[in-house]
Amino acid sequence: MAGGDELVLLGTWPSPFVTRVELALGLKGLSYEYVSQDLRNKSELLLSANPVHKKIPVLIHNGRPVCESSVIVQYIEEAFPGDGAALLPADPHDRAVARFWAAYVDDKFVTAWVPTFRGKTEEEKAEGMKQLMAAVETLEGALNDISKGKPFFGGDTVDVVDVALGGMISWVKATEVLAGSKIFDAEKTPLLAAWVERFAELDAAKKVLPDVDGVVEFAKKRIAEAAAAASAN
Amino acid sequence: MAGGDELVLLGTWPSPFVTRVELALGLKGLSYEYVSQDLRNKSELLLSANPVHKKIPVLIHNGRPVCESSVIVQYIEEAFPGDGAALLPADPHDRAVARFWAAYVDDKFVTAWVPTFRGKTEEEKAEGMKQLMAAVETLEGALNDISKGKPFFGGDTVDVVDVALGGMISWVKATEVLAGSKIFDAEKTPLLAAWVERFAELDAAKKVLPDVDGVVEFAKKRIAEAAAAASAN
Repeated sequence: MAGGDELVLLGTWPSPFVTRVELALGLKGLSYEYVSQDLRNKSELLLSANPVHKKIPVLIHNGRPVCESSVIVQYIEEAFPGDGAALLPADPHDRAVARFWAAYVDDKFVTAWVPTFRGKTEEEKAEGMKQLMAAVETLEGALNDISKGKPFFGGDTVDVVDVALGGMISWVKATEVLAGSKIFDAEKTPLLAAWVERFAELDAAKKVLPDVDGVVEFAKKRIAEAAAAASAN
Repeated sequence: MAGGDELVLLGTWPSPFVTRVELALGLKGLSYEYVSQDLRNKSELLLSANPVHKKIPVLIHNGRPVCESSVIVQYIEEAFPGDGAALLPADPHDRAVARFWAAYVDDKFVTAWVPTFRGKTEEEKAEGMKQLMAAVETLEGALNDISKGKPFFGGDTVDVVDVALGGMISWVKATEVLAGSKIFDAEKTPLLAAWVERFAELDAAKKVLPDVDGVVEFAKKRIAEAAAAASAN
């Protein structure tokens, strides 16, 4: 990181997508200023930095914003290639495989996970959980295929797939508490269950993964608010 | 392209996602074998090349498959950096901006476009069209901001954003016929309307953009089949 670089991250503490960016920044050894956002009263800074989606995370590098967590994580790698471990493999085919699985985490894992607690009916929640468990099983196979016995999706070091899934760890653990069932189950998906513990023990993860009890409380509050809003309609 | 490279593309002619890959291959001047797929009777080749999603397009390079159109287009650029024009900008921030808008085309434009003809009710179709027109307006602003008066999202040459949106052109024109209203409107979004004509005139586009009348017929057949299936239930 050059001496003159200024990195500002707009985020909220419980967002798993912000956690991804913080993981990437930490893994690359980059220092940054964190500016907490109130999503119910969006700041001029957020609205001007991400006028299209008006969402966090936004990483502002020397005054220029980058939006969308998967885009930001790749940007961090490409803007700071010499800092820390590489978050993308060097070989083009390996990079394509990493991008495929990082997209899978968003398209299948996250998409299934959201209705497990935000579903309007018990059926929606159950269907989300069913699809989430199918995605977890697929990711177990991917970890087996890609890591070839090494500790991470990226091999000996973490890459964009580890960061994409790693950002979700506290929320998945909170979802296990709320749903009363294991998602990363040591018997059904032993590789992934071991990966979660290994990833969470990384210095970069310990620093930024939100406290699980805090996420559980946050989620309960949001669920109660949604229920109150629904019954008021 | 090295003499020993073998590229095989698994696709179907009407798929806009396959068109994207063909555009990228053509723009890079790469030759490839096209193997047409029957999605109602999936081939062993497709199932083994894309076991996770079982979808086209798949690009098989020297026996190794790459799946998902956005991943494939980036792969083509990274595996063949010296061939044809660069599909990603050199500057990391410009690359992030290009990835952001390519993702926007998928997340907002394509997501809104699908229900315009596949929506189960007239309300779903109308809501899709409303969101599609909002996405078109946003893309008009993006083209103005990014191209800075140059002909393409990529500037003087096309990049991943042009390819992502360019792959949709025949389908958008077919949707205009089916819906009876302009989507790329010369009055409302003049830059984008001019971009469509300019992109469609590229040699690489003329070779691979599906015939609009053919897409209209294909879409009508699918809509009729879906209606028959729904009334049989």
